[in-house]
Amino acid sequence: MEKKNLGVGLIGFGIISGQVATVLKEKAGILAEHVGCSLEIKKIKVLPADLKRPLAKEFDPALFTTNEEEFFATPGIDIVIEAIGGEHPAFEYLQKALSTGKSVVTSNKEVISKRGADLMTLARQNNVSLRFEASVGGGIPLISPFMFELVANRINGIYAIINGTTNYILTRMDKEGTDFNTALKKAQELGYAEANPKDDVEGIDATYKLAILSSLGFKMSVGPEDIHHEGISRLSSRDFRYARELGFAIKLLAIAKQDDKWIEVRVHPVFISEESLLAKVDGVYNAVLVEGDLVGNVLFYGQGAGPKPTSSAVIADVVSTAQDLLIGAGNRIKWQAKPKIIKPMNEVITRYYLRMNVSDQAGVITQITRILGDNQISISAMLQKEANIASQSAEIVIMTHLASEAAMQNALHEIGKLKVVNEIGNFIRVEDL
Amino acid sequence: MEKKNLGVGLIGFGIISGQVATVLKEKAGILAEHVGCSLEIKKIKVLPADLKRPLAKEFDPALFTTNEEEFFATPGIDIVIEAIGGEHPAFEYLQKALSTGKSVVTSNKEVISKRGADLMTLARQNNVSLRFEASVGGGIPLISPFMFELVANRINGIYAIINGTTNYILTRMDKEGTDFNTALKKAQELGYAEANPKDDVEGIDATYKLAILSSLGFKMSVGPEDIHHEGISRLSSRDFRYARELGFAIKLLAIAKQDDKWIEVRVHPVFISEESLLAKVDGVYNAVLVEGDLVGNVLFYGQGAGPKPTSSAVIADVVSTAQDLLIGAGNRIKWQAKPKIIKPMNEVITRYYLRMNVSDQAGVITQITRILGDNQISISAMLQKEANIASQSAEIVIMTHLASEAAMQNALHEIGKLKVVNEIGNFIRVEDL
Repeated sequence: MEKKNLGVGLIGFGIISGQVATVLKEKAGILAEHVGCSLEIKKIKVLPADLKRPLAKEFDPALFTTNEEEFFATPGIDIVIEAIGGEHPAFEYLQKALSTGKSVVTSNKEVISKRGADLMTLARQNNVSLRFEASVGGGIPLISPFMFELVANRINGIYAIINGTTNYILTRMDKEGTDFNTALKKAQELGYAEANPKDDVEGIDATYKLAILSSLGFKMSVGPEDIHHEGISRLSSRDFRYARELGFAIKLLAIAKQDDKWIEVRVHPVFISEESLLAKVDGVYNAVLVEGDLVGNVLFYGQGAGPKPTSSAVIADVVSTAQDLLIGAGNRIKWQAKPKIIKPMNEVITRYYLRMNVSDQAGVITQITRILGDNQISISAMLQKEANIASQSAEIVIMTHLASEAAMQNALHEIGKLKVVNEIGNFIRVEDL
Repeated sequence: MEKKNLGVGLIGFGIISGQVATVLKEKAGILAEHVGCSLEIKKIKVLPADLKRPLAKEFDPALFTTNEEEFFATPGIDIVIEAIGGEHPAFEYLQKALSTGKSVVTSNKEVISKRGADLMTLARQNNVSLRFEASVGGGIPLISPFMFELVANRINGIYAIINGTTNYILTRMDKEGTDFNTALKKAQELGYAEANPKDDVEGIDATYKLAILSSLGFKMSVGPEDIHHEGISRLSSRDFRYARELGFAIKLLAIAKQDDKWIEVRVHPVFISEESLLAKVDGVYNAVLVEGDLVGNVLFYGQGAGPKPTSSAVIADVVSTAQDLLIGAGNRIKWQAKPKIIKPMNEVITRYYLRMNVSDQAGVITQITRILGDNQISISAMLQKEANIASQSAEIVIMTHLASEAAMQNALHEIGKLKVVNEIGNFIRVEDL
């Protein structure tokens, strides 16, 4: 195909898409060298508010439209970049782009995690490509490794810190001893957490990303609804103190494992050894540890969000798409979907950390350990902290050996009914990395 | 192109190529699914000794030949995999393969670092591809990120632990307080170091790998001969003790930086903050930190050697090459070569650690600090360790602020001439990561 340039259409002109447009303009020469022809922005679909951004003044006003029809009717758009986020109307836009023969690059984790397989089928039917490197981990190469560089491996496990907001909050709670709400407020002040932080702190954002990574890693269509998730709001600064004392860090981990029978996918706070590399991933940084049968453990680390890192991935996808278009390669990406069997949460086996507040009297520990023993849960370590004289209570921390979630939930239910137990402060699963 | 299978020819049947052959056989079904057609081994070029390996019995004897002519005359070979290492005869083999229209996958860092640009030109002329993901960092995706996923970035720096042998030795020296020779012997016993360890411990292997990474990162043809390199044999266990005391770890780092004027490429032991992620990379593991203008810092970590991790990268390259062949994509890889200007070592600016043994008498420090001051080198920290009464000597450790290599070499020369200085024990550059 001989072509002087390829046309690009942008959907969105927010913080991410604005940065993408800026890079396309500022690095036009270098990108043209890589692709083998120039990339020209043909149209930008905006919201009225976007036009008030100072950045809008740096682009030809004729490029902007608030009208969806006009955007899609623009001649010469070969590649559509979508960075508006959310399932709707992004899904409809992507559907329209793919079905009219345009290749798509998106940074939208929600639409890919929920509708990725459908969109990929549509892309294949239309012999165009759909790329989404920026949907997980910002500029860290993660999608490509699963699709290309690790393709010879059977992926046995994925262990990921993939939400910068929660990792920032946990880092502050750990290093400064602050409580969850104080750390969240600081994250909001710094722009790391949104006014409504639910998607991040409840682990929902992480389920989108884990759904994408595990779908690619296991070659199954894993959706966010398949993933058990718990957030970080129930963590207290005391949990961090005890974790340190026991040689652990606390992280919100997205975990996916595969054995011969089923896959296990879950997002929740975990204790991990403070010696593990993931324990050293602080602040808004992301890291993904992948365990393959040939490659062993590989780890990818970097900034998981932000306009510049995200634009790095979006532009890389645009370059690859453009290279493919020039050679007429169509869709080189495979999204296979073997049948999936998800392990029920009750069957998950881990070690546990338990923290409880009990009456400071004789025989309390015997009552608790008897219940654990009756549920086949054995204890690996116990800390009894100084009693509070005024309230006649004491805090007990127990680390268990491996136990099933069902057994632990049953034991917690029974322990909660004991008269001598004032409160089950927390229980946190332990991941041995 | 409609084809029922693609043909593969292997050059070599040693520990790496044997593993590659095994994976091609054992994972044939999965690989065929990825590629879109089956991959069939057509011929294996072996040395007579290879045929005595037990693994040879698991392949059809008709596949083996010790004859180069016969190998290249075998019909139906689309992709040649080379894993024999070294510049010759690998270069001639690859030349022959490419010029007769075969695509090439190699794990050979030496031939790629020395002749990569020539081979790439030859590949382009013949519209076939040349891939070498396994040449750096075993199974860790490193070549592809530079070629594809980080392509939107201007790469400002590369900081790499890319030699597992030396990192294993340094880890033992650090954790166990052993000296270099003891740690080397242990590495040899475990098969991590060769009988003749020169290429690893003198940093030569690391220069091959850094030449490849910096060529791709900076889009210049950087050769091993451009890279200043020093090995690890002059490190003593005392250096590790002082490093810890000062908050540093010691690593053999391959460093490449780019500014507006020139590039800086060097391999030598460095002090790095013990808080940096690279400081946590222990044993035979590798890690590469890349600094891009958009992506910020990204880090790739994993096993940098060994048959399985290396086969992971080789097979991934074979799959990508095969996918490209099926769609008639030819060579999608760019190896650009802008003119390079290498910063002379004398112009390099770092901080320094100095350790010296001096006479235990008044005025010694004044004499040393005066020389440093005369060379515009200022001191950031100093440790004076207990004197040795018997020898009437003391050990002094000095950390400097930023200084040029020229100034430091000049100062060391003058300090070495002082009567009160018995020995300059070591000087190690400090890298601020």
